[in-house]
Amino acid sequence: MPEAFPQIEVAIAASTGAVGQRFVELLHDHPYFNVSALAASDRSAGKLYGEAVDWRLDSELPQEISGMELMPLIELGEPTSPNVIFSALPSNAADEIEVHLAAAGKAVFSNAPDHRMDEDVPLVIAEINSDHMRLTDQQTTSGFIVANANCSSIMATLMFAPLEEQFGIDEAHIFTQQALSGAGYPGVSAMDITDNVIPFIAGEADKLRREPLKMLGTAYQAADFPIFPTVSRVNVRDGHLIVAHLSLRETVDLELEHITEALASFRGPEEVRNLPSAPKLPIHVLSQPDRPQPRLDRDTENGMSVSIGQISEEPNTDRMGRRVFKLIGLGHNTLRGAAGQSVLNAELAYARDLLTP
Amino acid sequence: MPEAFPQIEVAIAASTGAVGQRFVELLHDHPYFNVSALAASDRSAGKLYGEAVDWRLDSELPQEISGMELMPLIELGEPTSPNVIFSALPSNAADEIEVHLAAAGKAVFSNAPDHRMDEDVPLVIAEINSDHMRLTDQQTTSGFIVANANCSSIMATLMFAPLEEQFGIDEAHIFTQQALSGAGYPGVSAMDITDNVIPFIAGEADKLRREPLKMLGTAYQAADFPIFPTVSRVNVRDGHLIVAHLSLRETVDLELEHITEALASFRGPEEVRNLPSAPKLPIHVLSQPDRPQPRLDRDTENGMSVSIGQISEEPNTDRMGRRVFKLIGLGHNTLRGAAGQSVLNAELAYARDLLTP
Amino acid sequence: MPEAFPQIEVAIAASTGAVGQRFVELLHDHPYFNVSALAASDRSAGKLYGEAVDWRLDSELPQEISGMELMPLIELGEPTSPNVIFSALPSNAADEIEVHLAAAGKAVFSNAPDHRMDEDVPLVIAEINSDHMRLTDQQTTSGFIVANANCSSIMATLMFAPLEEQFGIDEAHIFTQQALSGAGYPGVSAMDITDNVIPFIAGEADKLRREPLKMLGTAYQAADFPIFPTVSRVNVRDGHLIVAHLSLRETVDLELEHITEALASFRGPEEVRNLPSAPKLPIHVLSQPDRPQPRLDRDTENGMSVSIGQISEEPNTDRMGRRVFKLIGLGHNTLRGAAGQSVLNAELAYARDLLTP
Amino acid sequence: MPEAFPQIEVAIAASTGAVGQRFVELLHDHPYFNVSALAASDRSAGKLYGEAVDWRLDSELPQEISGMELMPLIELGEPTSPNVIFSALPSNAADEIEVHLAAAGKAVFSNAPDHRMDEDVPLVIAEINSDHMRLTDQQTTSGFIVANANCSSIMATLMFAPLEEQFGIDEAHIFTQQALSGAGYPGVSAMDITDNVIPFIAGEADKLRREPLKMLGTAYQAADFPIFPTVSRVNVRDGHLIVAHLSLRETVDLELEHITEALASFRGPEEVRNLPSAPKLPIHVLSQPDRPQPRLDRDTENGMSVSIGQISEEPNTDRMGRRVFKLIGLGHNTLRGAAGQSVLNAELAYARDLLTP
Repeated sequence: MPEAFPQIEVAIAASTGAVGQRFVELLHDHPYFNVSALAASDRSAGKLYGEAVDWRLDSELPQEISGMELMPLIELGEPTSPNVIFSALPSNAADEIEVHLAAAGKAVFSNAPDHRMDEDVPLVIAEINSDHMRLTDQQTTSGFIVANANCSSIMATLMFAPLEEQFGIDEAHIFTQQALSGAGYPGVSAMDITDNVIPFIAGEADKLRREPLKMLGTAYQAADFPIFPTVSRVNVRDGHLIVAHLSLRETVDLELEHITEALASFRGPEEVRNLPSAPKLPIHVLSQPDRPQPRLDRDTENGMSVSIGQISEEPNTDRMGRRVFKLIGLGHNTLRGAAGQSVLNAELAYARDLLTP
Repeated sequence: MPEAFPQIEVAIAASTGAVGQRFVELLHDHPYFNVSALAASDRSAGKLYGEAVDWRLDSELPQEISGMELMPLIELGEPTSPNVIFSALPSNAADEIEVHLAAAGKAVFSNAPDHRMDEDVPLVIAEINSDHMRLTDQQTTSGFIVANANCSSIMATLMFAPLEEQFGIDEAHIFTQQALSGAGYPGVSAMDITDNVIPFIAGEADKLRREPLKMLGTAYQAADFPIFPTVSRVNVRDGHLIVAHLSLRETVDLELEHITEALASFRGPEEVRNLPSAPKLPIHVLSQPDRPQPRLDRDTENGMSVSIGQISEEPNTDRMGRRVFKLIGLGHNTLRGAAGQSVLNAELAYARDLLTP
Repeated sequence: MPEAFPQIEVAIAASTGAVGQRFVELLHDHPYFNVSALAASDRSAGKLYGEAVDWRLDSELPQEISGMELMPLIELGEPTSPNVIFSALPSNAADEIEVHLAAAGKAVFSNAPDHRMDEDVPLVIAEINSDHMRLTDQQTTSGFIVANANCSSIMATLMFAPLEEQFGIDEAHIFTQQALSGAGYPGVSAMDITDNVIPFIAGEADKLRREPLKMLGTAYQAADFPIFPTVSRVNVRDGHLIVAHLSLRETVDLELEHITEALASFRGPEEVRNLPSAPKLPIHVLSQPDRPQPRLDRDTENGMSVSIGQISEEPNTDRMGRRVFKLIGLGHNTLRGAAGQSVLNAELAYARDLLTP
Repeated sequence: MPEAFPQIEVAIAASTGAVGQRFVELLHDHPYFNVSALAASDRSAGKLYGEAVDWRLDSELPQEISGMELMPLIELGEPTSPNVIFSALPSNAADEIEVHLAAAGKAVFSNAPDHRMDEDVPLVIAEINSDHMRLTDQQTTSGFIVANANCSSIMATLMFAPLEEQFGIDEAHIFTQQALSGAGYPGVSAMDITDNVIPFIAGEADKLRREPLKMLGTAYQAADFPIFPTVSRVNVRDGHLIVAHLSLRETVDLELEHITEALASFRGPEEVRNLPSAPKLPIHVLSQPDRPQPRLDRDTENGMSVSIGQISEEPNTDRMGRRVFKLIGLGHNTLRGAAGQSVLNAELAYARDLLTP
């Protein structure tokens, strides 16, 4: 790792939206990165950030950011723009422009879904599959794209990874209860969600079937077990709950505490542990019978930890005679599940000297 | 069925609570039944109903009920008390007193969990297992107890019954999002549930593992397939959502529309269809991609129908090569899921001439 | 009033929005009116209503309406279009087109704010100032516009009218807690209002300062007392709460029960009482100490009544030695506060034979 | 102020409730105070704190507190118990025991309403009426009681104090929207407040009429202007909103910015400013048109600041020709409005050397 942390200039694309604001919050006072450019859609370009943004976070909008002028997205590709770009671009909008930026030599850390499943784009959770980062070498552009997964895919993958590694996952049924902020801003109408649950989020189940497998596999080969997901939107500001019913491969002599131990002792690789955004414990195992809960657990370790509770075994086996295990996970969808993950991935790239100032 | 509907006198036990109030609402103007006695705990006995009750329903408290004096529970067993009793007694409290009332010759229609799994107590959803009613003959008391299941068990069973009958259910994973009124009143603190989900309800999963199987079997033999349930409490006043992931036994040539058709065409037996509380369609199949939803669908047919939507098949099969089907159901937990079900069961008993005036 | 209620054809302008949907709900099975035309913005014109609308009401979208084709707004002015038009047009959009329709000979019953304060446009609550209807004679167009006030102005005016008439109002401080549906759909983001109150609604206070005075005065002279309003938006679907602190003019020997009696006995003029949408009691006085409440009281008499409770007198007098009275009112903002009021006004016009088939 | 902050032992009475938990949170790592005793009702006495408490705060329950044994309330009066006691006792329970503790020589900092209006008990907001502290000399006990006001009274008083001092308040209408945590735990049922507002809190209005006047006056003479309050409970976890309509005494040449300036420049006396719990700005003036809002502003300066916005003047004068000013305030009800205020008051007593170790 470079000594004394020479700072690298970075830009944020789509900086005024929900995830863009989280990028601003996480990066404006960062030891490795210095935000020197903010881009927005043409409609907002030219305005000061403080004028264009409808700041929605509990933290204060940083002074120095507020006074910066928004540039058009396309200018991010110019040689004078920073070489590192955090992209909060929405689906579709991201597709071409992220390729364009990579072609212009930029390192793009993206939240957008467009390139997640591209063979040569690493889909990274630093603690889990940091080795996938090497896929950037396969990209034919002078720069590269590193993607992070959909918010609920990231949570599920953190819940799965220690179990997949130690016992093998044979099959997973998952049910999500996802927070409002996952739909962006303004997102869900209060008229629709007050005294209600909306058991539908377009496109979400398909991401949950595929993204965790890519992350849990090798860089070149996805993991292979069926994931059966159902999703819902609930009246919670932040924090996605995920229930998992799991069949495991190695269950001879397996006791519940082995599962608990596998989760509670998970740390991720050495090189990741001391990155600025890495939590001390990527997974917190809770013992209370009614946890995790979104309001109580979403902010654990600055929203970068997943809390897991109610680890149990069903009294019945399934039709194959397999034991059925259950656990409930909770993570902050716009921190670990979005901007925070991108920043952590970029910190890893920085530590490996993959970023040019 | 008796002509001209000679009315039968009925009493309500635990009439001031959440379910008790629903009984009052459903029975005070009923073609078969006339509420002539209201009982409550000793603390409230002697007061007028209108003084003792903290009426929480949107409908008005009926005048004629409001002025009735509450009697002690124990007096319900006296010969002068009505021969038909609707019991909204809480768990444990119900255990002995319901047996006492049956021994005193009363017909007890109970919401309480205490006797649901007793071998000689029928657990009834009139449209599904009306034949279980004959179990009352096995009871050694001069009266009898007919139970109805837990609210979410009733919903799940209505979702399962047509599929179990036509295709056989091989295995079920279910996940509930349950309404506040399921916890009674005052129930859940607003401080706990605002901006939150509580993924825990004590004892609920165990009921879901067993009660549907009793109802889906014969009077003497429960159905036999594993149910893997996980439950949660959400910030919704009324209406339980249930997601089911199902493996079916007969899936050769099975198409999704066969499932839809099985559900949409379900009517229940002839003798039940014209009972006063029976909905025209016990199951409503919805075609919109984001339904059912608690606020929009809980009141369908006076809260006596279950709405089912998002019937789909997973793109992957499971490890046994079985196809995985999904559906989402929604029902009103204090109507079809509690008091309404008891009343419908009693109407069936009335129609069969099992009740003595 | 015409015998046998010959039905008059009516059209709804801006029929797909929140208020437009209420018009459809109230008019599709109306004894006086028959909905034969539905208009929408150019974007939706040509589509079937059922395709274009995002139906948000608990009631079902009526079949016969669902299949009607939407016409462009401008065609409402044609001679073949119905002579009576209910306008749910938004502010600004309403300004010119409502004048155009009146010029084309149509009777326009409008919810829009644009012409409310025009000298020759009556702002009507049928029970309170039906005599203002004669202002339509002053309009130079062959047709005319009848407006109804802003939702919270209507509630406040119903609260004030009996007191202004009997005791004179000298001064009023009012505070509103307004429901989500008052902001239209999608309106307020759930991210903004969950676990929150927004003490601001653009333009609302100014309407509250002026509209009640116009309605409480004569057709030619507004009432004259200062109204000091502050407004807020709360996380409630329907139902506006209004607190009023009032100084009255005639308080010698005034007792609280006189105020209660003035409110409870309010009926409005004979000619209004039997109109189809008129509630039996425009004002319901509640005696419980914690009422009115939006969820419990908004649907009273189909949402056409205002519920008033907590009528009290402050222990201290003000600096002028005046007694200070307080009351809390609640009404359904999209029924009495919008579409329902327009329909009631139109019924009055029908009864007076002001509408031509 | 004593050098090097020699720590003083303190006890918390009623330490397991909502306010008691806040005391634990604020005091467990305090520069002046060391929590060495925790008391609870007889039912919980003898248990470990961690066993007896149902911890509801977002912060973690401190380890060292969790393992402490709860003592019975009555033992707090023993000589070996700490000389400083923070009382979160509920109304009525507090009455006798607080007097008993003061008689036993203890310094009692109380949240309870019982002694607030006693002539010799100072009701203190450190920044506003620190001089009232001298009233403790009037108390005939060897120890003393210092009270703090009701949560909404504290907010209102902070809003009023700079205006009362500079311009004189002639009359105030206030309207509150109060958070759930103000009702303690479990407090309000979710069934009552979801999709609703409850415009009633028992006893609250009377506190608002009297407590601010005691604090705004001298130690011996209350301020004298009428306060007309109406209160409501809203579905917000923390943070009370207060709307004030004010008539001022000195309004010649008064401009709105003078009011803004009076509020924004308010600091409180020198001796208070550097106390550990004192915010840098007791009042934050916000310029956005839709602020303050509970979720966004309640945590300002650790919940010890009141945020004030929407300072405006009504276009009309009242019947006396007085100008009417409006402002909206927001404060954290269990921090500045309860435990935080007690702690700040105790810090002031410490700094004045009124506390014996």
